Amino acid sequence: MPHINVNKDLPGIRALLEFSPETASPIGDLANLLLRTNEGLSMAEREMIAAHVSYLNDCFYCHQSHGAIAACYLNGNEELVNKVKQDYLNADISEKLKALLSIAGSVQKGGKYVTPGQIETAKTHGATDKDIHDTVLIAAMFCMFNRYVDGLAANTPSDLSTYSLRAQQIVEKGYGNHVFTSNQPQN
Amino acid sequence: MPHINVNKDLPGIRALLEFSPETASPIGDLANLLLRTNEGLSMAEREMIAAHVSYLNDCFYCHQSHGAIAACYLNGNEELVNKVKQDYLNADISEKLKALLSIAGSVQKGGKYVTPGQIETAKTHGATDKDIHDTVLIAAMFCMFNRYVDGLAANTPSDLSTYSLRAQQIVEKGYGNHVFTSNQPQN
Repeated sequence: MPHINVNKDLPGIRALLEFSPETASPIGDLANLLLRTNEGLSMAEREMIAAHVSYLNDCFYCHQSHGAIAACYLNGNEELVNKVKQDYLNADISEKLKALLSIAGSVQKGGKYVTPGQIETAKTHGATDKDIHDTVLIAAMFCMFNRYVDGLAANTPSDLSTYSLRAQQIVEKGYGNHVFTSNQPQN
Repeated sequence: MPHINVNKDLPGIRALLEFSPETASPIGDLANLLLRTNEGLSMAEREMIAAHVSYLNDCFYCHQSHGAIAACYLNGNEELVNKVKQDYLNADISEKLKALLSIAGSVQKGGKYVTPGQIETAKTHGATDKDIHDTVLIAAMFCMFNRYVDGLAANTPSDLSTYSLRAQQIVEKGYGNHVFTSNQPQN
């Protein structure tokens, strides 16, 4: 049960965004800017970073949500997404993405865990300064989202099919405020 | 030295916000909405929560910056701010703020560390749902900011007087994008 009185028909972060629509607006804007672009990193890669960090933070709602969105961008390849969440070093992804996931994993522990060696490895595999910036900020942003959701004990659907349905909507429409707070459909 | 090529004349998060002005905009908006209001929690209380969480995350730039801003709101009472950062249970603050700092400290560890007992204690001392929401989101937001700053190894001034000068500007003008990215004065 959520720690505060929010709309019980909305799952996860959506109930919190409805509770506080003013802060929902920049939160949606930030998510769109970091996750809905293929500049440098693809949308699939950005969502895989989000899902991996959320998995490390043990935030079921976020890693299911963003794992489902990543799978949408990858023609439904849930197996690859689950491998990236749990064991990315042995996943069938680029060396560049592996190096960036290593940085994201360090950010999840704390900013100072990122080492010059990790940055060097990422650059060796072709990561630009923007790729590294976006990776660090996506990982940091999910350290915020995961804490927002679980810190207020937001409702978390256990039926995994709801995450796939919702993922389709995000893939089509993005993270606009209207998408976060709309209560139709309720998944 | 920062991990990416940013303006060396700008300290801390300001160099990162200049590097990525698109994401700087919603980041500034979110900071203003959560830190620049006295609705429920005062601006001083909000900045004390920010400074405490940044201290727990060992982010020198952020806990100095927001500690200095909190002190500005408290007529220069740096001693109180330092006590809140390090040992809030024995600080001369309200029981309500102590209960909310306890919640913020749990959010810093991870969202699931927040217990129903902590929420109940905060409510007993007069915290509203909005106070609890804002506390959790402020704490979560600083888990993002702290990781953004240290994850990219942003420059951190060691001269403490620069934080006080900067704090005065924030107190006067807020966290607008123009304030973050302006390089005059450079502190």
